[in-house]
Amino acid sequence: MERSSSDPDADLAAFAQRYATVRERTERLAAPLSAEDQMVQSMPDVSPTKWHRAHTTWFFAEFVLGADGTSGRHWDLPEYRFLYNSYYEAVGARHPRPNRGLVTRPSSAAVAEYRASVDKEMAELLSTGDVSPQLLDTMVLGTHHEEQHQELLLVDIKHVLSMNPAVGPAYSDVVVPPADDPGAADFVEFSGGIAEVGRSFGDVGRLADGFMFDSEGPRHEVRVYDFRLADRLVTAGEWLEFIADGGYERPEFWKSDGWARAQSDGWNAPLYWRPDPDDPDAWWIHTLTGLRDVDPHEPVCHVSHYEADAFASWAGARLPTEFEWEVAAARQLELDPSAVERGCLDTSADSTFHPRAAGPRNGRLRQLFGDCWEWTSSAYEPYPGFAPAVGAIGEYNGKFMSGQQVLRGGGALTPPGHTRVTYRNFFHPHTRWHLGGLRLAKDAS
Amino acid sequence: MERSSSDPDADLAAFAQRYATVRERTERLAAPLSAEDQMVQSMPDVSPTKWHRAHTTWFFAEFVLGADGTSGRHWDLPEYRFLYNSYYEAVGARHPRPNRGLVTRPSSAAVAEYRASVDKEMAELLSTGDVSPQLLDTMVLGTHHEEQHQELLLVDIKHVLSMNPAVGPAYSDVVVPPADDPGAADFVEFSGGIAEVGRSFGDVGRLADGFMFDSEGPRHEVRVYDFRLADRLVTAGEWLEFIADGGYERPEFWKSDGWARAQSDGWNAPLYWRPDPDDPDAWWIHTLTGLRDVDPHEPVCHVSHYEADAFASWAGARLPTEFEWEVAAARQLELDPSAVERGCLDTSADSTFHPRAAGPRNGRLRQLFGDCWEWTSSAYEPYPGFAPAVGAIGEYNGKFMSGQQVLRGGGALTPPGHTRVTYRNFFHPHTRWHLGGLRLAKDAS
Amino acid sequence: MERSSSDPDADLAAFAQRYATVRERTERLAAPLSAEDQMVQSMPDVSPTKWHRAHTTWFFAEFVLGADGTSGRHWDLPEYRFLYNSYYEAVGARHPRPNRGLVTRPSSAAVAEYRASVDKEMAELLSTGDVSPQLLDTMVLGTHHEEQHQELLLVDIKHVLSMNPAVGPAYSDVVVPPADDPGAADFVEFSGGIAEVGRSFGDVGRLADGFMFDSEGPRHEVRVYDFRLADRLVTAGEWLEFIADGGYERPEFWKSDGWARAQSDGWNAPLYWRPDPDDPDAWWIHTLTGLRDVDPHEPVCHVSHYEADAFASWAGARLPTEFEWEVAAARQLELDPSAVERGCLDTSADSTFHPRAAGPRNGRLRQLFGDCWEWTSSAYEPYPGFAPAVGAIGEYNGKFMSGQQVLRGGGALTPPGHTRVTYRNFFHPHTRWHLGGLRLAKDAS
Amino acid sequence: MERSSSDPDADLAAFAQRYATVRERTERLAAPLSAEDQMVQSMPDVSPTKWHRAHTTWFFAEFVLGADGTSGRHWDLPEYRFLYNSYYEAVGARHPRPNRGLVTRPSSAAVAEYRASVDKEMAELLSTGDVSPQLLDTMVLGTHHEEQHQELLLVDIKHVLSMNPAVGPAYSDVVVPPADDPGAADFVEFSGGIAEVGRSFGDVGRLADGFMFDSEGPRHEVRVYDFRLADRLVTAGEWLEFIADGGYERPEFWKSDGWARAQSDGWNAPLYWRPDPDDPDAWWIHTLTGLRDVDPHEPVCHVSHYEADAFASWAGARLPTEFEWEVAAARQLELDPSAVERGCLDTSADSTFHPRAAGPRNGRLRQLFGDCWEWTSSAYEPYPGFAPAVGAIGEYNGKFMSGQQVLRGGGALTPPGHTRVTYRNFFHPHTRWHLGGLRLAKDAS
Repeated sequence: MERSSSDPDADLAAFAQRYATVRERTERLAAPLSAEDQMVQSMPDVSPTKWHRAHTTWFFAEFVLGADGTSGRHWDLPEYRFLYNSYYEAVGARHPRPNRGLVTRPSSAAVAEYRASVDKEMAELLSTGDVSPQLLDTMVLGTHHEEQHQELLLVDIKHVLSMNPAVGPAYSDVVVPPADDPGAADFVEFSGGIAEVGRSFGDVGRLADGFMFDSEGPRHEVRVYDFRLADRLVTAGEWLEFIADGGYERPEFWKSDGWARAQSDGWNAPLYWRPDPDDPDAWWIHTLTGLRDVDPHEPVCHVSHYEADAFASWAGARLPTEFEWEVAAARQLELDPSAVERGCLDTSADSTFHPRAAGPRNGRLRQLFGDCWEWTSSAYEPYPGFAPAVGAIGEYNGKFMSGQQVLRGGGALTPPGHTRVTYRNFFHPHTRWHLGGLRLAKDAS
Repeated sequence: MERSSSDPDADLAAFAQRYATVRERTERLAAPLSAEDQMVQSMPDVSPTKWHRAHTTWFFAEFVLGADGTSGRHWDLPEYRFLYNSYYEAVGARHPRPNRGLVTRPSSAAVAEYRASVDKEMAELLSTGDVSPQLLDTMVLGTHHEEQHQELLLVDIKHVLSMNPAVGPAYSDVVVPPADDPGAADFVEFSGGIAEVGRSFGDVGRLADGFMFDSEGPRHEVRVYDFRLADRLVTAGEWLEFIADGGYERPEFWKSDGWARAQSDGWNAPLYWRPDPDDPDAWWIHTLTGLRDVDPHEPVCHVSHYEADAFASWAGARLPTEFEWEVAAARQLELDPSAVERGCLDTSADSTFHPRAAGPRNGRLRQLFGDCWEWTSSAYEPYPGFAPAVGAIGEYNGKFMSGQQVLRGGGALTPPGHTRVTYRNFFHPHTRWHLGGLRLAKDAS
Repeated sequence: MERSSSDPDADLAAFAQRYATVRERTERLAAPLSAEDQMVQSMPDVSPTKWHRAHTTWFFAEFVLGADGTSGRHWDLPEYRFLYNSYYEAVGARHPRPNRGLVTRPSSAAVAEYRASVDKEMAELLSTGDVSPQLLDTMVLGTHHEEQHQELLLVDIKHVLSMNPAVGPAYSDVVVPPADDPGAADFVEFSGGIAEVGRSFGDVGRLADGFMFDSEGPRHEVRVYDFRLADRLVTAGEWLEFIADGGYERPEFWKSDGWARAQSDGWNAPLYWRPDPDDPDAWWIHTLTGLRDVDPHEPVCHVSHYEADAFASWAGARLPTEFEWEVAAARQLELDPSAVERGCLDTSADSTFHPRAAGPRNGRLRQLFGDCWEWTSSAYEPYPGFAPAVGAIGEYNGKFMSGQQVLRGGGALTPPGHTRVTYRNFFHPHTRWHLGGLRLAKDAS
Repeated sequence: MERSSSDPDADLAAFAQRYATVRERTERLAAPLSAEDQMVQSMPDVSPTKWHRAHTTWFFAEFVLGADGTSGRHWDLPEYRFLYNSYYEAVGARHPRPNRGLVTRPSSAAVAEYRASVDKEMAELLSTGDVSPQLLDTMVLGTHHEEQHQELLLVDIKHVLSMNPAVGPAYSDVVVPPADDPGAADFVEFSGGIAEVGRSFGDVGRLADGFMFDSEGPRHEVRVYDFRLADRLVTAGEWLEFIADGGYERPEFWKSDGWARAQSDGWNAPLYWRPDPDDPDAWWIHTLTGLRDVDPHEPVCHVSHYEADAFASWAGARLPTEFEWEVAAARQLELDPSAVERGCLDTSADSTFHPRAAGPRNGRLRQLFGDCWEWTSSAYEPYPGFAPAVGAIGEYNGKFMSGQQVLRGGGALTPPGHTRVTYRNFFHPHTRWHLGGLRLAKDAS
């Protein structure tokens, strides 16, 4: 694997800066939350804030500091290894995921200590300059791993707060103004053929924008047919039309598994939409800034793949394949390299922590990388020639390549710089608690 | 209903003292627990500590202060009425019991404020002297209600702490010394005949030891046959013999429902017993003072009615009926009126918060009122002439008179003065998280 | 144990006649049913007809012929012992109850062969005259056991046929005429005191009316208070009023366990009542003679104990204790010894296989022994001095003495001669598929 | 859509012959089964034999005879439409799938009448010659639909018979001789590039080998990389090695979803393998010819996709994509067009109804089209340009394109002529009751 720089010391210094930035962001995101907020696991998919803070730290303790032979510190206690391992079956027994919300000890305060101790050790290690390229790779992976958990921390706490029956529990007090109407979507046509997608480790280094997850490669050719893509995300207003037209009651739009799930779980709107008790046609939405009216101009989010697919069918369209999306997004980025920076996580004081409405029509694909992750019609499968890494870190992506669906782009809770055109996010098709939205596709006319 | 005193002012002053004592004890019991500890509901039967503190307060806000027309205070907010009502169906919608552990707001700190506000209002009300006998009755009930929740708070937090996989999470750091061998049990014979049991409101006032729950009455006659009762509780050592003799594998000792539950839940020892990983024949026990060896001389507790019944069958004995127990206990109290004070909740600094071994044999029934609640063979049914109170408080006991089993006596976590010879505790026969133990009975020889 | 006759040969001859009668009735009851009908287990509580026919036969093969040392016949095959043992844990492993409807082989025809083979062996055994009193006791028990299963066969097949979505699957084609109005119920007063209830083996033999189940004894004294009993069963018409008054929506009438079950199972009427699709206020009822209108003058049946208890509470009454019922019924029988014969199973060609409306008021308790089993407020508990029999047959009754509720009297599907004044039927309080109805009680005025 | 013949009368005559053949085969397959056997639904995925016989008939009654305006016949009764509709949501309410085993009426005999009546009507319709091309298409589809259900009937009855705890319930009494050792597998290399896969309606007619399901098209290009394919299926003997090497206990071989399912369902061998009670290292297998030893030379079948994938991972290989399989099979068929006829359903008297061992190595891909369906790594997704048919028949395939995995080839229970090189079978990845086996693939060396 090539490095992004031929100067190891510069690499380490750059990484130390990145490490500090990422680690600090996690604590900033947790800061508004009480010890009680950080304790709760509101469903098996959700993890407590406290757990995210500890698990991301455990990654460094286990795979970096442990690998270097440090010992005798409290993060080496068996219970920390047991509690904060998540899916690495190879690293001993794991604490059952649905029980994370029952672990009262260590407390949030003890987790803060744990973080500080590991950060101190990491700083010392980095200052020695004695870090092998392989270990640096693992460290870099640890920061990208933590960025993933920052997004999860936010979608998880949104779910936790939604369990409070009292009106309006908010993560932030910012007031969100109504959005401007983005206008009807345009369909932009793309020509097909043989296209290259994905990325190979041989082409990039691990640092900065050079980083990639193993599932993004190898770079390879696919045959894509001519297609069209909507120039913006589907809006809440369009979803209201779908509901009004019986979208949740008409099986002809739905896949069989999706219909069964919609019935068994009683879906009649996106997650977090609640009927306005005073107006049967109006909906409220629970957000990180509290309960408010649904804004028809915002993109719809917190819909499952099943709902997204049914909506597309209702709309006479379909979801794009992940390769159509990547081909289109790559061309977009040639026109506007800054697109990947827009709409991602804003941690400033006036952040709404919510996807924003599309800006005015501009002939290009809007909302590609922030706002909502976009469900595709592609199952999460290995690329030709894919091989998982050796050892526990090899469990990172490959083991999830069954039963999950690819989402592309990025979301309003994705840390800046984390996503890219080849990035493959994935969730089970019934899940709704993350920021899944959709963009329509059609065959070429 | 007669009053315990002909002087209403004295009644109020006595009650004010009792109120302060009871309310303070709740906070004292919660004090060693972190915000995280107080947040967790480890199974549907368990409530978070924070919830117990708020619900017992809600009782006064709803039935006393509300009844007096106070208003505009934060305990009148709909969400407090909604969140902290428990089983009073008559008082509006209720928050689903299994979701109590998801309510992060109000926080523990807010609950403390809530308690202080209500206490202040209560003090003001009591100081006016303008309290009807009916309202005083409700207030007195509120304090006995809170005492019940003090015991629940402790058995619930024991369960919560048991979920921490780390070794040894303790409520108290006291070290428990080994107990002395209480010797084999003696069976004391009692003659039967027509006996009076229970208590009538007409005979007692509501205050102090005059208080009774509606389910304890009316006083009435029952026909009891000659019987024998063991002079102490069954010990952990005797339970070890039951296990060693295949007690959990031999259906011939078990009731049908009990055997089915034991199989489905995989019981092979009392709740909180854990096999010593280093010695297949030894057991550890999780207690409020942490994990330690099972002490064979202590009474066994945290067994279900099903297990207690199977043990009795294995031992060639049976469980007593609740009337046999009451007849025997009443005679014991004639010999030693202080028996009812022994073994109940000790909140001193060196309390073990655990049932203690029986003292030396003394020709009487030992361990009658503290240590462990004693499962009886009697279903919890209304006494002849029983009628529930009118209104929401009428839901207090009568609605539970189906499917539950009576326990008599008291336990090591029962507040002093709370129990008495006519007291009828009750739980479903499969439950184990409370302090249920057993005393053997036999027909007269 | 005394015998009903001092002449053993006469005993055997009488038993041989009884055996033939009982065994023939089982086959007669199964005759209208197809192989498909006899195959189905529509819920875990239900057993297939084929299974009932085989299991009652297994009883004789296992406990009578097996006990006599016969061997080499196909009922000795391990799979027959395995398949057709029901709750006798002591007789080896059992086939899981919920899987009875999956056993296609042996077929109904093979079960008929099995029955014939065992009957032939039994006839040979009886003809030898070489039967010990103990073995004769077991045989007699076998016939009473088979009578119990005859009633179960009928309530089970009613449930099975109710699963057919097609309109009107009937066990019999008899057309049921509307019933006459039995008029309002009268409450008959009974004086209490010390009463003797139950029956002792020492007082009776095993044959004919001398038979008793172990749970009916020993005879003993109970203290009963003055009470009143309705002179007829609650009718479907009265139940319609309960429904119209919100009986299924008002928790104040219900026990806590009952309310929870009613909500989780969505009860809004007795089992087998179905809303008339053309008239929102009218109900149909599925019966063994097919689907027809609910007749308001018939007794209500197929209600759970929870519903019966809620109805009584709504009606300002209560359910009787089993001892009140027995005391009243014993007095009734002194006035009219033939009452125990009325209303039980009629297998003639024009039988309706359904409880009938009460006859005209006559100053006595009507419908005591046939029509519907009557839920009492008494849990099914052992009488003082009760001891289960030794060996597998000891599992007959004692192991069910937990969590079940006593029903007294008899039902329209109870074989004639099977029930009596001391008979204790029992079911879990949530069950509805058997013929449970109710009679109201009140305290003395 | 083009027709396979320009002579409509010849088309109809050919179809009438095909119709008779297919319909007769269904009854022949059901003939060995008793009414009880045909009644049972042993799990929700399984349907009773009786149901398969009726549902395949309903297809013609609903979509052919109904479409032609026939009426007044008993197959127009609402309950038949209700009971025997399966997944066509568009055709009114459906009977819940898990309750199919509760419908005792109509009986098997009534279903036979239903089949005969519809066949008579169909014969009359065909004899008129007045059949539109569209209606003939639907009829042809009906016969292919019935062939699919013939295979399901057999895998379903295998599961039903497996529920009989008695030893050896068999569909057929044929004795299966031990198979010859097929030798180690060879990996055959195939070159990649741009390949055409699938089939277009424009290219084929509906009749005979011209038929295709909509999901097989449109024909389109895919990019395939060089790959290797094993020249035979994985054998039971190789699976024994997997088990012996801890295959079911080592999470490193498994996908995350698969591991979770294996744990929750307790998998430790293929479905139908049962440990030999006398030899801990030996396995028995339940087959349609009864219980016998596992033959190591036979292909393994009744494994889930999860197990197949884990095995491949353990073996240092992977599953093929569906396109790799199709490319390789197409080339094979050029060499040996008869390969598609081998190994499929044999209904002769000495059929074993089980996959057979591979023949001797011959430099080609053995066992491609019969024996076992082959799990691929491809999710069941629509091909580019796929559009479901209009109306209820449009639900045939498209609605299942979520959460299912493609299997290619054919099985020992697939009717001859039913499968082909473009055929896409599909099941959920956890399912095991169908004939799923596997062939290993590798990247080119």
